[in-house]
Amino acid sequence: MDERELIGSLSRMLDAAATADDCAAVRHGGEWLVLSTDMLHETTDFPAGMTDPEIGWMAAAVTISDIAAMGARPMALLLAVGLDRPERLTGITEGALACCRAYGCDLAGGDTDAHIELTIVSTGLGAAERVVRRSGARPGDLVCVTGYLGGAQAALSGCDRFRQRLIAPSPRVAEGLALNAAGATAMMDISDGLALTLHDMLAVNACGFAVETARLPLPAGVPQDEGRAFALFGGGDFELLFTIPPDRFPVAGVAATVIGCVVAERAVTVDGAPLPARGYMHRWAE
Amino acid sequence: MDERELIGSLSRMLDAAATADDCAAVRHGGEWLVLSTDMLHETTDFPAGMTDPEIGWMAAAVTISDIAAMGARPMALLLAVGLDRPERLTGITEGALACCRAYGCDLAGGDTDAHIELTIVSTGLGAAERVVRRSGARPGDLVCVTGYLGGAQAALSGCDRFRQRLIAPSPRVAEGLALNAAGATAMMDISDGLALTLHDMLAVNACGFAVETARLPLPAGVPQDEGRAFALFGGGDFELLFTIPPDRFPVAGVAATVIGCVVAERAVTVDGAPLPARGYMHRWAE
Repeated sequence: MDERELIGSLSRMLDAAATADDCAAVRHGGEWLVLSTDMLHETTDFPAGMTDPEIGWMAAAVTISDIAAMGARPMALLLAVGLDRPERLTGITEGALACCRAYGCDLAGGDTDAHIELTIVSTGLGAAERVVRRSGARPGDLVCVTGYLGGAQAALSGCDRFRQRLIAPSPRVAEGLALNAAGATAMMDISDGLALTLHDMLAVNACGFAVETARLPLPAGVPQDEGRAFALFGGGDFELLFTIPPDRFPVAGVAATVIGCVVAERAVTVDGAPLPARGYMHRWAE
Repeated sequence: MDERELIGSLSRMLDAAATADDCAAVRHGGEWLVLSTDMLHETTDFPAGMTDPEIGWMAAAVTISDIAAMGARPMALLLAVGLDRPERLTGITEGALACCRAYGCDLAGGDTDAHIELTIVSTGLGAAERVVRRSGARPGDLVCVTGYLGGAQAALSGCDRFRQRLIAPSPRVAEGLALNAAGATAMMDISDGLALTLHDMLAVNACGFAVETARLPLPAGVPQDEGRAFALFGGGDFELLFTIPPDRFPVAGVAATVIGCVVAERAVTVDGAPLPARGYMHRWAE
């Protein structure tokens, strides 16, 4: 059973909306509050050789990215840390605090515990007048991504010049807010790779997504075939995938690339052929 | 290094307020939002023999109790679950959902992951016009607890008739709201035992707490000496400890007992002698 099947079984128990977006959204004080929680384990989620401050930064960044993907402003972050060695907490907190400060978020509290393996759960709170969900795409909208794709996977495959991109992700907070204000119709972050992300969007929209490999913004200096594979199937990039009506694009202050368009047929295609739902995914032994 | 020393080192890096209460509190929409996160591991936090729904209930209850301890209403809960076996998620979610529903809280989302040992992090969001903090006690206030003390420890010590109290804690949500409205001056929950809780209150107040063993509400049918030890030092009870001016007590709808009073001298005493800061605590090998 993989993570998406598990979440499918949960959504039958919970309100479907609870599992359909990067964040849960609840109304309060005339706005939407958005909430996201991410569990990370040392051996499966953090590339080898990361320092404790780098681990703390990444734990905060993945959650802030989920808030950014709703087009919301981050307000507060909580960190629950299961520590294999208590002295690691200081470095982890320093890194998380630096990331929070960089994105205007308050590191507001947390919990600690002893644990065999370092385990970090970061939970974030954000707010927005209007949220951009995964659903909402309409045929004719452009399909776009911020920044470029495949850099984190290039680093995992040995290109050391992309290492910072892998270990110190920059959540697209300002971009998410600008895209929200500009009228993006659907949005999510690409941390599991473009192919899986497009299929996640497909699952909650009544339309499909047609992308073209020639348009994909690739990691510089990587051979083209490899770069395209990294861009489609590689995980660890924290860019935003969004759809937006053509007359609303480009958006001032947002570096983004059109990679395709929203189509009526409910399928994800690349250069006209079906794009497999493949990429980074948690998987348990069957 | 124990958990309180760790949290002390964190509070030097963060705003001291971030570590001083059961929840972090941030302003939004004319109210306080309160946020709490709790990390629980199967071997250290859940008594042996609990079913998955019981585990899910408890994970939700400990976090809802933190919200109750601020005098806030629970709004939303997120559950991050590191699963040793994926099929456990359904039972855990059922239990958490039942607890959320019992306390008017929305189980709004979560995250899942594979893990060697079952690990659950529940994070809760609540709201209140005014929050009751751990600080705020004033000499002359009454020191009170809801319900009774020592039941969970009695169950841990083999009294099976207290087992439900241990494995299915009832957070005091309605009581917390009523005590807030009635003007309680300080409040926190007693999950680590009365002695440690009083010392946590001492750390953030400019006054002290004098309690009397004869006034402690004890688990029925347990020999008195044992009952008093359970009440002072036993963990796992999710009652509220609060201080309140004498003219505001009792509070309609809140079953509570006066166990002492707030005094000018900064010390915790029981029957006039110092009460050691002893009880349930996470501790790492030095």
